Amino acid sequence: MEINAIAQQRIRVITSSGNKDAEDDLAVEEPLEIQLSYIESGKKIKKSISVTMRTPGNDDELAVGFLFTEGIVAEKSQVKAAANDISDENKVIVNLAEAFVPVINSLERNFYTTSSCGVCGKASIDAIKTISAYQNDDNTLLVSKKVIFSLKDQLNVQQSIFETTGGLHASALFDVNGDFIALREDVGRHNALDKLIGNALLNDLLPLADKILLLSGRASFELIQKAGMAGIQVVAAIGAPSSLAVKLAEESNITLIGFLKNDKFNIYSGFERISEL
Amino acid sequence: MEINAIAQQRIRVITSSGNKDAEDDLAVEEPLEIQLSYIESGKKIKKSISVTMRTPGNDDELAVGFLFTEGIVAEKSQVKAAANDISDENKVIVNLAEAFVPVINSLERNFYTTSSCGVCGKASIDAIKTISAYQNDDNTLLVSKKVIFSLKDQLNVQQSIFETTGGLHASALFDVNGDFIALREDVGRHNALDKLIGNALLNDLLPLADKILLLSGRASFELIQKAGMAGIQVVAAIGAPSSLAVKLAEESNITLIGFLKNDKFNIYSGFERISEL
Repeated sequence: MEINAIAQQRIRVITSSGNKDAEDDLAVEEPLEIQLSYIESGKKIKKSISVTMRTPGNDDELAVGFLFTEGIVAEKSQVKAAANDISDENKVIVNLAEAFVPVINSLERNFYTTSSCGVCGKASIDAIKTISAYQNDDNTLLVSKKVIFSLKDQLNVQQSIFETTGGLHASALFDVNGDFIALREDVGRHNALDKLIGNALLNDLLPLADKILLLSGRASFELIQKAGMAGIQVVAAIGAPSSLAVKLAEESNITLIGFLKNDKFNIYSGFERISEL
Repeated sequence: MEINAIAQQRIRVITSSGNKDAEDDLAVEEPLEIQLSYIESGKKIKKSISVTMRTPGNDDELAVGFLFTEGIVAEKSQVKAAANDISDENKVIVNLAEAFVPVINSLERNFYTTSSCGVCGKASIDAIKTISAYQNDDNTLLVSKKVIFSLKDQLNVQQSIFETTGGLHASALFDVNGDFIALREDVGRHNALDKLIGNALLNDLLPLADKILLLSGRASFELIQKAGMAGIQVVAAIGAPSSLAVKLAEESNITLIGFLKNDKFNIYSGFERISEL
């Protein structure tokens, strides 16, 4: 995590007995513009496709992860380079491979912005099942409940910025033995996950079919959608899942765990992947 | 809060000593399409301007609040009617007043999606100060710290759905004496606030210059932006504020409180509005 993820702020602390002035650490939130650069019919195209409020750091992973989970980029070979603009730290430019022309239907988010959005839950779920390169049809993955119990403590150790600012969401990746692989933090929960998945893509680790994804907060539809795109089969959230997150997990054959504590958790879908031993 | 804000789900509860099957309450998350209907040059226009993942209930307020905080609608008289589509509960149609043609620059979010997004924090802050109909230049508002201490307990009493599902954010409004006015809940924190502000607009209560806004979670840039649009001068969050939230609060002359507990809180900006008595 980079140093510019934290900002100092002069504050006043008010208690029932009195007040004092102090310094506080804030989680940095800044906009990031994601710009695609590619060649179409011999012409060089630069196209801004998203602005997201994010915590600086790992912007290249965020951009590539976003493109992947939105279905715009399908594999690493389609990306030539991703880096912050030299003159603008709040802009990241993704240079696409020479032969690759992206299909960008709309500046809006792809999945749940269809014309048939009346049945949007269903329509989006179908879209994901079509778009995702990885189908979760392997049911042999088995994770011990002891491994799941161990994740929360590990998250607390790794989530360093949250500790000082209280202001960041985290997404972390573990293997089936509960060994820590990677963690990303951000003011936006979707950004933390995009960074994690972008990191996996850039390191040729996709699909993440034999990994466990841990979410520091609640599990929304959007997060399960992103997990599904990366081929993740087991998602555990410290907080509550939403109704549509559970529905999507069921239809995508993802094991979804919520309200994770050190000695207790709920399974919402895919019970069979969690073992007693 | 409507009954379809909660969904039942069959779950498995895993503990160190054993497992059992159970029923759990989930916070409902469904997409809502916001469609504008208006007349331009004698032609009837229907235009979808946003899809947001929300908890059903108060969709009319959500739509109108969204339009207001995005600067598309400036006052109640510009809205003729807002209601769910008869044939589609995940769509809300906002009929604009006859003489009113909205300016919709882009399908993307208005504020932080400018061409000069490299200086986006600053640019967005300037944009808000220009766009908001209400300038917070009145510094006479004074709130007792005892009132602020009382808010968290009141939130817990009012936040009924969160209690059963653990899955909702809330925005609540209080007067300067700490008397409760209104609360809205949603899976999306921005939606909860849009509902609250939409409710205020529909009831001719804007600007909310002498009210206190309480946020159940963290304070992001987006939430302070929405509060500023509604003329709110005092915002208190149970969780942490982000760096850009504080910056915007400072420049908009908003008092921003974070980490609110029953006997302690931090003030990040606008110290002078909080009194010892």
